[in-house]
Amino acid sequence: MQFVSVRGMARWISATGPEAVIAGMVDALEGNLRRWPQFHLTPRLATHSRVGVIELMPTTDGEQYAFKYVNGHPGNPAHGLQTVTAFGVLADVYTGYPTFLAEMTLLTALRTAATSALAARWLAPRGAEVMGMVGAGSQAEFQALGVRSQLGVRRLRVFDVDPAASAKLARNLVPLGFEVQVCGSAAQAARGAQVVTTCTADKQNATVLRLEDLTPGVHVNAIGGDCPGKTELDARILDHADVFVEHAPQTRIEGEIQNRPADFPVTELWEVVRGDRPGRTHPARTTVFDSVGFAVEDFTALTYVRDAVRGTPFAEDIDLVAGPDDPKDLFGVLGAPVPA
Amino acid sequence: MQFVSVRGMARWISATGPEAVIAGMVDALEGNLRRWPQFHLTPRLATHSRVGVIELMPTTDGEQYAFKYVNGHPGNPAHGLQTVTAFGVLADVYTGYPTFLAEMTLLTALRTAATSALAARWLAPRGAEVMGMVGAGSQAEFQALGVRSQLGVRRLRVFDVDPAASAKLARNLVPLGFEVQVCGSAAQAARGAQVVTTCTADKQNATVLRLEDLTPGVHVNAIGGDCPGKTELDARILDHADVFVEHAPQTRIEGEIQNRPADFPVTELWEVVRGDRPGRTHPARTTVFDSVGFAVEDFTALTYVRDAVRGTPFAEDIDLVAGPDDPKDLFGVLGAPVPA
Repeated sequence: MQFVSVRGMARWISATGPEAVIAGMVDALEGNLRRWPQFHLTPRLATHSRVGVIELMPTTDGEQYAFKYVNGHPGNPAHGLQTVTAFGVLADVYTGYPTFLAEMTLLTALRTAATSALAARWLAPRGAEVMGMVGAGSQAEFQALGVRSQLGVRRLRVFDVDPAASAKLARNLVPLGFEVQVCGSAAQAARGAQVVTTCTADKQNATVLRLEDLTPGVHVNAIGGDCPGKTELDARILDHADVFVEHAPQTRIEGEIQNRPADFPVTELWEVVRGDRPGRTHPARTTVFDSVGFAVEDFTALTYVRDAVRGTPFAEDIDLVAGPDDPKDLFGVLGAPVPA
Repeated sequence: MQFVSVRGMARWISATGPEAVIAGMVDALEGNLRRWPQFHLTPRLATHSRVGVIELMPTTDGEQYAFKYVNGHPGNPAHGLQTVTAFGVLADVYTGYPTFLAEMTLLTALRTAATSALAARWLAPRGAEVMGMVGAGSQAEFQALGVRSQLGVRRLRVFDVDPAASAKLARNLVPLGFEVQVCGSAAQAARGAQVVTTCTADKQNATVLRLEDLTPGVHVNAIGGDCPGKTELDARILDHADVFVEHAPQTRIEGEIQNRPADFPVTELWEVVRGDRPGRTHPARTTVFDSVGFAVEDFTALTYVRDAVRGTPFAEDIDLVAGPDDPKDLFGVLGAPVPA
């Protein structure tokens, strides 16, 4: 069984370049969205407490099984801890044996960025030059790199309620060739942008972006609204846009559209990728990708990194599955216990 | 985060002695059954394929969260693989951070034996001297050691359709001070026994033990009937016995009592341990513990081994959770990527 630790994952991403990794994952995700009906979509298993949630998210394509462990604890940063940590496992459906274990805190940031980037590939207006970002937290750099990998956008306008977060973003991205303009409001960050990403962490129904802040024709990746009671957009934006989602039944519960009626019209991204339904229909239409995170993305990220690191020093062996010589002699694995 | 590998688990069990480990787990499980109402019982999340099942089984006591990954693939031994493999994780409910990872193929055998042994402690007739075993597969030695740890029984009568399995059992247990009599039938194995364990692997509704095979007053641990369509006992045994289960709603689907009406009377083992309901009521009553495996047992096994191996060479550190100095600077974990 192969294992990719946090250190192994970080070294692999650094050695390959985070933008190249995300771009590779965009292509892999597009491939999996084209075969979307092959995936068995299991509801996530959530265990809630007063301070957060722990979730298990499984999926399978009939040959490989994947699951992710992920928590969400909004109070963690006040104690110097990540809001979200994650790890994931792949297993062989035919034997049930787990085959691959990986950290997924970094990997989830990559797959979330890859998903946004894939949406931008299909939905953003042509010739985009400026990206607006509302929220400069732990996902922000990955989002910027993902969009640049697809649209070539190098000019960022960023707003965060915490100026230190915007400064961190600039510190991380300027060396990678971005121009970063730190803005005093979300409206200012969105001004003149053709693609806008909202990615904030407040666990409430907030309005971090108003309809008036947007130029018609923009594409919005709305990342932060991802669980019941946690949304980011002025709901009027949704009413004036074509809205795209991962999997409508889940997004109606967890996404921005939880603030809209149950029959609010949406298109699933895989339908656009397969050519079954239209994406952007007019340069002046606003498009919104209401992203909540979905198991097929984790499946893609895990299989992608497994294939990329196989046989490299970024992967290790891990001794997690007993392999007795005789399957009926599990006791023999103990060696010779001392006689009683 | 701590990790116990297969090798670490095997060495810990060998060094401590498997019987002592199981006996310790029996006490820990009894303690957890006494506080049963504190546990949040989540249905397991099963992903079925034509050849087997992969399950995620979570539970929490409100402070710690545990889940087990476990598969069941009856065709595996024909390819030299285990029918069941498993691993488990503990996490802190307050932060959502995973804290402990362990192999659970060996550990599941220990906890299953500890559960049977706890049932025997509360339900077996006094003065038991002979244990009958139907099935000498990978669980058998652990079952024998568990029962001995509680009842002192050293005389085993064993039957398996595969004579090599019985020979393996004898080879493993005679050095540990058991007398092992290999029998030609289940009836012969059960003859004169005060406690009988059935633990076979066929994925069907089989009858490995008939009512006629049992002496009234015996206690039966029925281990192998543990999923829909997989049972072991002549259903008349259930009609003539007091039947005990882990968690009735689950056992009615997965256990021996799936062959009985939905209102078939059962007692949950935790009710006996807490003194809320009677266990054995008469020396001549037959008692059956219809065991299917339950998440609280995995919780107990994981917390028990975690506490036992902390700070010993049997546990390792594992780098599975990213810990950036600044929770908002996940990107900084990558170090300084090469500028584009």
